[in-house]
Amino acid sequence: MKFVSIFTRGLVLFASIALGAQAFAQSDPLPSWNDGPAKQAIITFVKQTTDPKGPNFVPPEARIATFDQDGTLWTEHPIYSQVMYSLDRVPALVKAKPELANVEPFKTVMTGNREAIAKLPMGDLVKILAATLTGMSVEEFQSQAQKWITTATDPRFHRLYTDLTYQPMQELMKYLRANGYKTFIVTGGGQDFVRAYAERVYGIPPDQVVGTAGATSFGYDKDGKPVLTKVPKLLLDDDHAGKPEGIHLMIGQRPHAAFGNSVGDQQMLEYTKAGDGARLAMLVLHDDAKREYAYGPAQGLPDTKVGTFTQALYDEAKNQGWVVISMKDDWKHIFSWEQ
Amino acid sequence: MKFVSIFTRGLVLFASIALGAQAFAQSDPLPSWNDGPAKQAIITFVKQTTDPKGPNFVPPEARIATFDQDGTLWTEHPIYSQVMYSLDRVPALVKAKPELANVEPFKTVMTGNREAIAKLPMGDLVKILAATLTGMSVEEFQSQAQKWITTATDPRFHRLYTDLTYQPMQELMKYLRANGYKTFIVTGGGQDFVRAYAERVYGIPPDQVVGTAGATSFGYDKDGKPVLTKVPKLLLDDDHAGKPEGIHLMIGQRPHAAFGNSVGDQQMLEYTKAGDGARLAMLVLHDDAKREYAYGPAQGLPDTKVGTFTQALYDEAKNQGWVVISMKDDWKHIFSWEQ
Repeated sequence: MKFVSIFTRGLVLFASIALGAQAFAQSDPLPSWNDGPAKQAIITFVKQTTDPKGPNFVPPEARIATFDQDGTLWTEHPIYSQVMYSLDRVPALVKAKPELANVEPFKTVMTGNREAIAKLPMGDLVKILAATLTGMSVEEFQSQAQKWITTATDPRFHRLYTDLTYQPMQELMKYLRANGYKTFIVTGGGQDFVRAYAERVYGIPPDQVVGTAGATSFGYDKDGKPVLTKVPKLLLDDDHAGKPEGIHLMIGQRPHAAFGNSVGDQQMLEYTKAGDGARLAMLVLHDDAKREYAYGPAQGLPDTKVGTFTQALYDEAKNQGWVVISMKDDWKHIFSWEQ
Repeated sequence: MKFVSIFTRGLVLFASIALGAQAFAQSDPLPSWNDGPAKQAIITFVKQTTDPKGPNFVPPEARIATFDQDGTLWTEHPIYSQVMYSLDRVPALVKAKPELANVEPFKTVMTGNREAIAKLPMGDLVKILAATLTGMSVEEFQSQAQKWITTATDPRFHRLYTDLTYQPMQELMKYLRANGYKTFIVTGGGQDFVRAYAERVYGIPPDQVVGTAGATSFGYDKDGKPVLTKVPKLLLDDDHAGKPEGIHLMIGQRPHAAFGNSVGDQQMLEYTKAGDGARLAMLVLHDDAKREYAYGPAQGLPDTKVGTFTQALYDEAKNQGWVVISMKDDWKHIFSWEQ
């Protein structure tokens, strides 16, 4: 009897702890974030802007949050995923147009010599992007991109690129949506490329993806069926000043919260913070070489051309009340598969 | 006792009729539509695409419906509302820049001579549009447009332009949204102009308004505050082939339903119908001079330059299984204030 009683009490105690932990987990919308100023800034912002009696209340139709993608929602090193995509497409392109095999920069890409490929000048990279991202129907492109994104893996973790999304940012987007925010991606990357997986991976539908966008041309195929073909004409260069301009073009409202990680996000954050009331601007600082990558050159981190975070941007953030997220200190987990 | 009984029975009978009528009203999502092929086509389409067991089921994330505005959602005769807006802005423009008072076409507009204004060539109209729709911040423009749209009235009904939205189309948009469709405006009119009232008038948020769009330029005002200025550079000519192109740019998915009323909507409807499964394409025919306007020149209606509906478009609609809505026959009420 005594034993049973202790056993029962033990069970009850265990159940209480388990339920308590569950209740706590449910009440914490950001479990992958360590307690600290970054997590606190998010929670304070959401509480302030959703409290109908508070001075900073934002009506649901104005709750807009914008997220850069590369380096903010997923890993961008050693090189942007979309560049890997375009390089991977070159063999299929050369097969379809054999005359390209002896033409640079396609010739170099076909050698598979990584060092030589890495040294290609920007002009050559643009040629590769234009050749692999245009010339097909929008459906053909979507099908090609979807096939790649569900099979290609990154060179360090040997995982699907979509496995390299940041768990804390996924939680943040869900938390904002649960509080009536409409979440948009605002990326320097290709709009159509990101649309190929954004709904599945981030829960963000195609019309809420703003990115660097090329034109399409409406016409009819040989059977008279209407077709939209991707053409090499730039409509929106969605980086730096192009981000707030793209936000106006595609969203039409100033965001109340914006998230980025590099100099390309500076103007988006400035534009966001220039609005009235409570506005949240955050920058992810890659300072965790062990779990992901470390680059700046802000705060003495190694310099980089991919996702540059200058000291000037860091200082502006500190002076303007933006919040810098330290991947090392603020994120308990970076990737979902770490746990 | 007998009297009470009859009275009670009468009450019960009355209550039954009243409740029955109410139940009927609730079950009819399109009360301003007369029974007929147009109404039936809408209801069949919604039932087919939302039946999870049917062959034409469309998952909620793919339920996209696009609506032209001028002549499809509201009255476009005698001239597009936005043209009236721009003409009405000319005095304020000349006050700010007095040197324009003696320059054509502003000089003619300032005379107030309607006949002379109506005769201005297209090039002059474009000058007036550029001068009145650019040069200010996006917030200043929105404020100017909102002020006008809540005060200006049309020349025939002497009502606010927003009172001239079509009640049957308002019901249709609500019905589609109640069935999981995301509704977008895809207009040849100015995107920023329509955004100034679309949420209030149609329940359509700014990011779901696709229209002819000019560029903005990001910069800083004299106090160093970030500002987006509207500049006279065309990014998207959202008419004819520009409609499916604009749909791809801003929405990123082919619509399952599209609604228009003129040759400018032809390509949008072709693109919509070219998709798999059940697709709904409808054209509003203005054949009711008494309650609104009558113009074509399809079906022998008077010709017009504003919202042209050619016989060729009418024939294509009939051949391709699009549905032509007769305002006269299909709409019980056109405007909410008729009732």
